[in-house]
Amino acid sequence: MSNHVYKKIELTGSSPNSIEEAVQTAITKASQTVRNMRWFEVVETRGQIVESKIAHWQVTIKIGFTLDDE
Amino acid sequence: MSNHVYKKIELTGSSPNSIEEAVQTAITKASQTVRNMRWFEVVETRGQIVESKIAHWQVTIKIGFTLDDE
Amino acid sequence: MSNHVYKKIELTGSSPNSIEEAVQTAITKASQTVRNMRWFEVVETRGQIVESKIAHWQVTIKIGFTLDDE
Amino acid sequence: MSNHVYKKIELTGSSPNSIEEAVQTAITKASQTVRNMRWFEVVETRGQIVESKIAHWQVTIKIGFTLDDE
Amino acid sequence: MSNHVYKKIELTGSSPNSIEEAVQTAITKASQTVRNMRWFEVVETRGQIVESKIAHWQVTIKIGFTLDDE
Amino acid sequence: MSNHVYKKIELTGSSPNSIEEAVQTAITKASQTVRNMRWFEVVETRGQIVESKIAHWQVTIKIGFTLDDE
Amino acid sequence: MSNHVYKKIELTGSSPNSIEEAVQTAITKASQTVRNMRWFEVVETRGQIVESKIAHWQVTIKIGFTLDDE
Amino acid sequence: MSNHVYKKIELTGSSPNSIEEAVQTAITKASQTVRNMRWFEVVETRGQIVESKIAHWQVTIKIGFTLDDE
Amino acid sequence: MSNHVYKKIELTGSSPNSIEEAVQTAITKASQTVRNMRWFEVVETRGQIVESKIAHWQVTIKIGFTLDDE
Amino acid sequence: MSNHVYKKIELTGSSPNSIEEAVQTAITKASQTVRNMRWFEVVETRGQIVESKIAHWQVTIKIGFTLDDE
Amino acid sequence: MSNHVYKKIELTGSSPNSIEEAVQTAITKASQTVRNMRWFEVVETRGQIVESKIAHWQVTIKIGFTLDDE
Amino acid sequence: MSNHVYKKIELTGSSPNSIEEAVQTAITKASQTVRNMRWFEVVETRGQIVESKIAHWQVTIKIGFTLDDE
Repeated sequence: MSNHVYKKIELTGSSPNSIEEAVQTAITKASQTVRNMRWFEVVETRGQIVESKIAHWQVTIKIGFTLDDE
Repeated sequence: MSNHVYKKIELTGSSPNSIEEAVQTAITKASQTVRNMRWFEVVETRGQIVESKIAHWQVTIKIGFTLDDE
Repeated sequence: MSNHVYKKIELTGSSPNSIEEAVQTAITKASQTVRNMRWFEVVETRGQIVESKIAHWQVTIKIGFTLDDE
Repeated sequence: MSNHVYKKIELTGSSPNSIEEAVQTAITKASQTVRNMRWFEVVETRGQIVESKIAHWQVTIKIGFTLDDE
Repeated sequence: MSNHVYKKIELTGSSPNSIEEAVQTAITKASQTVRNMRWFEVVETRGQIVESKIAHWQVTIKIGFTLDDE
Repeated sequence: MSNHVYKKIELTGSSPNSIEEAVQTAITKASQTVRNMRWFEVVETRGQIVESKIAHWQVTIKIGFTLDDE
Repeated sequence: MSNHVYKKIELTGSSPNSIEEAVQTAITKASQTVRNMRWFEVVETRGQIVESKIAHWQVTIKIGFTLDDE
Repeated sequence: MSNHVYKKIELTGSSPNSIEEAVQTAITKASQTVRNMRWFEVVETRGQIVESKIAHWQVTIKIGFTLDDE
Repeated sequence: MSNHVYKKIELTGSSPNSIEEAVQTAITKASQTVRNMRWFEVVETRGQIVESKIAHWQVTIKIGFTLDDE
Repeated sequence: MSNHVYKKIELTGSSPNSIEEAVQTAITKASQTVRNMRWFEVVETRGQIVESKIAHWQVTIKIGFTLDDE
Repeated sequence: MSNHVYKKIELTGSSPNSIEEAVQTAITKASQTVRNMRWFEVVETRGQIVESKIAHWQVTIKIGFTLDDE
Repeated sequence: MSNHVYKKIELTGSSPNSIEEAVQTAITKASQTVRNMRWFEVVETRGQIVESKIAHWQVTIKIGFTLDDE
């Protein structure tokens, strides 16, 4: 983190299995349009319940990426 | 909210009449460039005062929309 | 609010029209099982968007009611 | 908001009808002693319940007004 | 989330293994008395340490369920 | 806090004398219907003023109790 | 809390003995210039330490009072 | 901070140059009507942008001052 | 702030010298792709330490800009 | 608070009797290893319940002390 | 948690695999210098992204440990 | 930030001149006993007022440093 400028975007990823997988799902999707992603911050963790089971984890993250001349 | 990825953006809409109308104004404007909007969350409610009257409600919301290939 | 004990419960009411109506919907539903409700506090305001229109306001409130022998 | 100094005061207004009206009630009362009010920020929304109906909305706002020699 | 009313309750589940399992433990326990659970929100994540090892994850969640006549 | 599930409820107790007594009042009232209470957390401290004296302390707490089959 | 407008002011009272006494000290001082005080909310509790003893409790409260035609 | 009572007021000062100057501007203005100011706390830092330059820093502070008979 | 709609984006700018310069760096970078920026709000202030010296200030801001057809 | 540097540490003290005594217990314990303690800030107030009675108050504080060469 | 005094320290642990492992890493490191650790609280969850993959989870926790003579 | 463990400590530095200088003062003091400091986060900005002038800026930061085998 030297002399750069970063932008943060907010995404919600989901997964039937784990918090970690839900975060990776969001990052993978973002990588289709955003390059140079550097870090993420978890801002909310929720999920859906179906028949008393966790059906999906839904994790909202902020992703920071470089805006510098690339 | 099944297996999707959502993005959230933050907008401020205004209205001389009500909080509800200010939120709809922001959503309508967003619809010019964003498709598949699903939900919003109110994050701040303020307003302008002119001659001791509420001149405009200014409501900041986060809008969530699908990033999936639909 | 003199010498009483109060309990708070958390509900989410919805309405296609307004924040006020969504709150009243939650209170009306609660009145089927809870007596002596005294006050509410809004803790979250969100909503659903369908075709770029606010389809439902979803307002989460805490309701305080008396636990005393009345 | 150029070179001015603003003061903020905190008021709670009430209304049997709506959040908007409760805010206007507070501003109208404040206008008896404060001039040059410019904006408000909603900080808390609550209300009284009487016989399972919203009897009063009670909305707490901060009002910002100019302290400059105008 | 259409025209329903939801209630939220707050539970703490525990697990020696993972955050995900602690949440499922709480939901499973709640299912003994609550029907129609729809979503949860993680509000606190803590744990016990015994001999420098994580002995139990303790995760507090809010569970939302339908209050409607179903 | 081993392998249990806990539920938290939110109560407001009051006392003309002290914060401590207001909390005990809430716990005593809750004990009429809830068993196995284990801990509380203070979430808000307020009070009524009558003729420039503190008339009642009103302390809101969350109480955690065991849901397990004991 | 019917149709009134309330103003809130923020004060810090102190006491060598207790939180309760520090709050009463602030209210007593306020009563020299403010009438119709109705409630207070504790917003911060701190204190001074002198030679490993609590020398003073310093409790910051918001006091709400009626602005109606007095 | 011994046996005194303090009042806090909330002001927003501005400056084209720096956060520090914006705070001093608010304090200087307050000194026209308030004596015995002791400390301030920064509660919000914002600013205006004109043609992609910071036109004004706008810093909101709380100022604490003595209410005692001095 | 009359009848417009605003969008907010979140950026982190950096500077070896000051908070003010870090904010301007973020705004200057944003101006390459965003027009009509109106205000910013500081949401986080951090920095890097190298050999016990502040090497870079890293200030995260939200920038608000007009979405209207201007 | 002139030209010094302070360090803050976080402690939880307990007492069967009162919040005030729990805080003093933490400070007394800290005084065995820390000198020049100046102030504390209450950050959390909780307690244990045994047989529907408050068994222990558990109060978490931050203690500030001077790091200067004194 | 009876009559003890606890100290809390704040650590950030990391792991390429999971939140749980990152927390254990921090606790293991702390155990080299701290005895009698009892509980932890997760205060922040973030991570590094390298080539659109989560490279490291970075979890900040507070660890509570006994200060008593044991 | 790869596979390390970090500890955070909380310090308050002061300066008669600027926020930046107050932070550097805290870091310089910490460097007498802590090595491998990597980053800081500003958590509170306050100051003393003497005769209507800012006498000292008092900035509280958290400093993160490496705990690894160095």
